[in-house]
Amino acid sequence: MIQVIKYPNKSDWKELLKRPAIDSVELEEKVATILKKVKQTGDSALKEYTLQFDKVKLDSLQVSEEEINKAANLVSDELKKAIQVAKSNIEKFHTSQKEEVKVIETSKGVLCWRKSIGIEKVGLYIPGGTAPLFSTVLMLGVPAQLAGCKEIILCTPCDKNGTINPAILVTAKLVGITKIFKVGGAQAIGALAYGTESVPQVYKIFGPGNQYVTCAKQLVNKEGVAIDMPAGPSEVAVLADETCVPEFVAADLLSQAEHGIDSQVILVCDNEKVIEKINIEIEKQLNQLPRKELAAAALKNSKAILVNNLNEGLDLLNQYASEHLIIACKNEEEVSLKSY
Amino acid sequence: MIQVIKYPNKSDWKELLKRPAIDSVELEEKVATILKKVKQTGDSALKEYTLQFDKVKLDSLQVSEEEINKAANLVSDELKKAIQVAKSNIEKFHTSQKEEVKVIETSKGVLCWRKSIGIEKVGLYIPGGTAPLFSTVLMLGVPAQLAGCKEIILCTPCDKNGTINPAILVTAKLVGITKIFKVGGAQAIGALAYGTESVPQVYKIFGPGNQYVTCAKQLVNKEGVAIDMPAGPSEVAVLADETCVPEFVAADLLSQAEHGIDSQVILVCDNEKVIEKINIEIEKQLNQLPRKELAAAALKNSKAILVNNLNEGLDLLNQYASEHLIIACKNEEEVSLKSY
Repeated sequence: MIQVIKYPNKSDWKELLKRPAIDSVELEEKVATILKKVKQTGDSALKEYTLQFDKVKLDSLQVSEEEINKAANLVSDELKKAIQVAKSNIEKFHTSQKEEVKVIETSKGVLCWRKSIGIEKVGLYIPGGTAPLFSTVLMLGVPAQLAGCKEIILCTPCDKNGTINPAILVTAKLVGITKIFKVGGAQAIGALAYGTESVPQVYKIFGPGNQYVTCAKQLVNKEGVAIDMPAGPSEVAVLADETCVPEFVAADLLSQAEHGIDSQVILVCDNEKVIEKINIEIEKQLNQLPRKELAAAALKNSKAILVNNLNEGLDLLNQYASEHLIIACKNEEEVSLKSY
Repeated sequence: MIQVIKYPNKSDWKELLKRPAIDSVELEEKVATILKKVKQTGDSALKEYTLQFDKVKLDSLQVSEEEINKAANLVSDELKKAIQVAKSNIEKFHTSQKEEVKVIETSKGVLCWRKSIGIEKVGLYIPGGTAPLFSTVLMLGVPAQLAGCKEIILCTPCDKNGTINPAILVTAKLVGITKIFKVGGAQAIGALAYGTESVPQVYKIFGPGNQYVTCAKQLVNKEGVAIDMPAGPSEVAVLADETCVPEFVAADLLSQAEHGIDSQVILVCDNEKVIEKINIEIEKQLNQLPRKELAAAALKNSKAILVNNLNEGLDLLNQYASEHLIIACKNEEEVSLKSY
């Protein structure tokens, strides 16, 4: 069950849509200490933190060619096929983004243009933790290859046996990434930012991560290393009307709720009965989820907001500006055009 | 005279191209205090800091319509004309950047596209200080209007008489910005990030500024307000060969050096005689500059690097990645294509 808030006043939206703020002072101190040590002692710091946080003593930080090749046998053909399909979909989309250079003559004889160039050296951070995000390998790795990045470095934490989830290795190889390091957390961001004996220094760091990773990205950013963005906890908002399929809306909300206990999902709807139906559906589906506990905790941060009409709902959603937005309404295209 | 470094080893480039690092701990504490007070007490904090830093007691923070209209009489027709020419050049360039939406069918029935939407509420910070940057009003304001931003807020510090440079007001009016506030420094960034009784809150803050402004932008960014980028001190690099015009190269280098004492300019050249000529030219032109002291101080942070050939120079410049790069070589187009 998500808490239902009925017809809030516009003046209360700001308070209502506040994201949980993290007190960052203590976090920053911890992360700054880790970064400093990585800067000073390189690989030795990485190994020390891997022992401390991931509970494994590593001789070599880089994943060997043998390990990458072995991974292929550990992934089912079905999954491999699915990864291949996803890869070609992502490729299709990003290939279409290649820009033509347009030369503009602003004054007589003065020619101006923009040209996008792939960043020479980029680092991709792939979270390990509770779910192996080989999807993120595709979503970061495919555009990096298409953009023509010359060096693509991947860091991801290993498990307590010192191994990386084979699906991550298979996906990395598929998109042509072979420089993979068993380093996670803030120390991985430090390694990519400063470079160590093993891990090459990069110019820009991409990828999601927990609060330590995000904080580390923000700190190295201040030292001149570019980052994609400070990724916060997962969130999704769904705008639904009476024509929506409550089962689908419930599944959409749960798909982000199950990311972690700090995720937040927001349902905005102009029909009280529909909210009730979706809430019942959420209860039903929640019980079938393997990550039930995480999702249940996230639902406590979540809200269903009953609005007077879809236009009001769009205003509210524009103010919230969620990471993901799903429109489950009768005329979704018309609604999406109204939203700005 | 810029210090000349001859044929440095590639292994020394990193050290050679290091930018002066600012110790940010003390700075951050000061700025955090200012931001906190603006968040807590709004306009009253802004007025207090304006009295403290800009030495003027303001009754009203917003520039009145009367003030904006009066400014027109204080700017020469010649300057007005130049501003108009610049505006239409900038418009021409940015209009050409409007993207067509390309719809891609990644799998059967799955349509994907990107669409750029202007951010609803944006804040532009225009530095006052040693030079009134009405150029920045154009370069930020024109694209904001073309992108369709609905609310454009401009903050800029006033002088000790409580007035804003008329060229800034005239330019703002020309690009259709009428919400102008006499607030500068870190307190202006706080006002735009949190909103006060007078200054509307915005979603993204743009514009250059001194180290307090930059630090404030980085701090509010961590609280979820978007920023364009942390603008550092000005810098330019020039790649020159024996065909360059030493007078022009010297002028190019001085054009950034005169920005401030923390500016940095780098000359990369494959010909020792040419470096000598440029250095002589710098001395000559420096003496004629109204901002001679600033430029002379900046030249102390600056370097002329003699390289074996242009390719080596390009590698070095790629590693440095300067804010501005000028190619003063025989075949500039070919050289520019080699640079990635």
